[in-house]
Amino acid sequence: MSPVTRSGPAPSGRITLLTDFGGRDGYVAAMKGVIAELAPDARVEDAAHDVPHGDIRAAAWVLDAYWRRWPAGTVHLVVVDPGVGGARRAMAALADGRYFVAPDNGVLTRVLAGRSRSLAEIPARGFGGEVSATFHGRDLFAPAAARLALGFALESLGPAFDDPVLFDIAPPVRAGSSVRGVVEHVDRFGNLITNIPGAWCEAAAIVAIAGEEIGPVRRTYADAEPARTLALVGSTDRLEIAVRDGSAAAVLGVGRDAPVEVRLGSSR
Amino acid sequence: MSPVTRSGPAPSGRITLLTDFGGRDGYVAAMKGVIAELAPDARVEDAAHDVPHGDIRAAAWVLDAYWRRWPAGTVHLVVVDPGVGGARRAMAALADGRYFVAPDNGVLTRVLAGRSRSLAEIPARGFGGEVSATFHGRDLFAPAAARLALGFALESLGPAFDDPVLFDIAPPVRAGSSVRGVVEHVDRFGNLITNIPGAWCEAAAIVAIAGEEIGPVRRTYADAEPARTLALVGSTDRLEIAVRDGSAAAVLGVGRDAPVEVRLGSSR
Amino acid sequence: MSPVTRSGPAPSGRITLLTDFGGRDGYVAAMKGVIAELAPDARVEDAAHDVPHGDIRAAAWVLDAYWRRWPAGTVHLVVVDPGVGGARRAMAALADGRYFVAPDNGVLTRVLAGRSRSLAEIPARGFGGEVSATFHGRDLFAPAAARLALGFALESLGPAFDDPVLFDIAPPVRAGSSVRGVVEHVDRFGNLITNIPGAWCEAAAIVAIAGEEIGPVRRTYADAEPARTLALVGSTDRLEIAVRDGSAAAVLGVGRDAPVEVRLGSSR
Repeated sequence: MSPVTRSGPAPSGRITLLTDFGGRDGYVAAMKGVIAELAPDARVEDAAHDVPHGDIRAAAWVLDAYWRRWPAGTVHLVVVDPGVGGARRAMAALADGRYFVAPDNGVLTRVLAGRSRSLAEIPARGFGGEVSATFHGRDLFAPAAARLALGFALESLGPAFDDPVLFDIAPPVRAGSSVRGVVEHVDRFGNLITNIPGAWCEAAAIVAIAGEEIGPVRRTYADAEPARTLALVGSTDRLEIAVRDGSAAAVLGVGRDAPVEVRLGSSR
Repeated sequence: MSPVTRSGPAPSGRITLLTDFGGRDGYVAAMKGVIAELAPDARVEDAAHDVPHGDIRAAAWVLDAYWRRWPAGTVHLVVVDPGVGGARRAMAALADGRYFVAPDNGVLTRVLAGRSRSLAEIPARGFGGEVSATFHGRDLFAPAAARLALGFALESLGPAFDDPVLFDIAPPVRAGSSVRGVVEHVDRFGNLITNIPGAWCEAAAIVAIAGEEIGPVRRTYADAEPARTLALVGSTDRLEIAVRDGSAAAVLGVGRDAPVEVRLGSSR
Repeated sequence: MSPVTRSGPAPSGRITLLTDFGGRDGYVAAMKGVIAELAPDARVEDAAHDVPHGDIRAAAWVLDAYWRRWPAGTVHLVVVDPGVGGARRAMAALADGRYFVAPDNGVLTRVLAGRSRSLAEIPARGFGGEVSATFHGRDLFAPAAARLALGFALESLGPAFDDPVLFDIAPPVRAGSSVRGVVEHVDRFGNLITNIPGAWCEAAAIVAIAGEEIGPVRRTYADAEPARTLALVGSTDRLEIAVRDGSAAAVLGVGRDAPVEVRLGSSR
């Protein structure tokens, strides 16, 4: 294979890999092998493989926590694909200097929504190898990512399109002295991460979730007593409900989409 | 160390690593350190580390899902070793252009059975370093894999032999309009993967497992309703029983070795 | 960035990564991205990411199982950091030819205690990028590790200090024909790993734990019947209580800090 002229940034030589394949089967290793065969100089870097089975929204959130941190020209490969073999398209994308390869099922929503982008539809027949109906990660997406890492242009992968599947992202709402949002992600620690920007919480007096009122926004986990619920602005600059050395999701009995209210006022 | 003349393919510079060591101890990292010290240019690539504890058959199946995907000259290192320190041999192998390092406990069965191969017994005294009785992954197998990645010949690792431990692989049986096989692997998703080749299922009318009859073979998960059991030909080209967005193993209450019958006929 | 003169060993080009971040969020991938951006030639190698949440003692034990196996100049990065954003310092260290970057919360105890060492305090303001209050792994520790991998001197990271947080490590005690110690770590397999050196157990007649007497020290797991409790000297050269093909922690109902006694005498 010899690359055609690129319109995007030069490859960084890295491919990150996000899946829901877990650590007990050979699916991840099969994808890595395909890439090693096609693009021997590319480095495949594990992002995470224990995303809940088929959970497109979780994968979209996780991807958003890291994709901008990588050098321009990095290929971010995402295979959380409950509709594999069905009507959903396979796609490659370029946005903000990074390449993406993924099923067109919404998993790139947080990358593509409201951002300048180029998209290519990866043909279902692939790039010359056999294509199974059940493992496009190995047969379509890994070869596509390898091509991008080799310097092939995005447009060489397939025809352009611009109507990707995007799920709705509910924005937080501010009304008077109240801000209303929702939990967008529950992480491994049971932290409840909301869609409310940190800057909106500076004057927060009370944070309310699941019928419980939590006092003002703290700076960090260490500012609370162990086992006590606290509110803080987390690493993605969003309001987060946590329990020091514990799981807020378990303690409060809530999860994704739970409503959260911030009442502004003079904090104590 | 300076390599002797090779009879096999040149190293690809890659060592894949499959273990049952999990992600909460330092065992994997100790092996990687040994390889980094001995073969600094080799790349160690994680295959999977959450194979069920001591489950040789599961590891053999998982390895078979990826080893052929990697470039010739890749070293596949497998440490699922419940008999460590006992009478079982340590071995290195060359088959179909790839190198393997593993305990001689059957874990290479799906690679070696019926295939042209060269085998070397790795001496229990190792290659100069200390050898513990309980962690041959670090003290025997990692150094052996590093040597192969450096270009040492297989035969330089130890004496040749050709009676490896191989477990029985039951073949599927075809009689009249019926095909009988078994579940060979249950993957993370609870998919039940059988030993029945996809090509044998083209005229399948009914697939029966665990007293339940499942209609004709579908093309992909997306062809079934959510939460419904379906039969399809999976990514390893074998008949597979799945539940869309669920676990067939849990829904049907069966696991490895469960009998499966395919009744041929006109599919609907 | 251009490195200043080093007093320590030249970088090996490798950064190992040990965390309690698990495999379902984007935290590990965000750290890897930061390193890829700052030190593109460094190789980040996963050590383990499923250390129990906030368990500093477990992480210290796990690190100790591998750090010496890696080449001189390797950077070992450890982020198990329940006190993130609080008063605890961030630190870099050099000991026995390896570099370390970690919170100063005791997680380096087994590396630093009783060993010649140099320590630098990483300033809370970081190295020019924004620093969140809740994710120092990404904002402080990853940039510090990247600098060391680029060849920056330890002393260039921040002011020297020499009073790191070290937790107490209880030594085993020998009195007459009895040795008393404790379980220091429970691994994935449920093996109970003690602080009693292997050499002290050569004449062990009986090992007692949790009110149960276990016969003499065996050489390896394979020397016991399946499902039977046995004592042996494990891969870290310490006495270990195990159940062949099972979990000693589950069978005996004990965990870390459980007392263990070895009664010396003529072994059978």
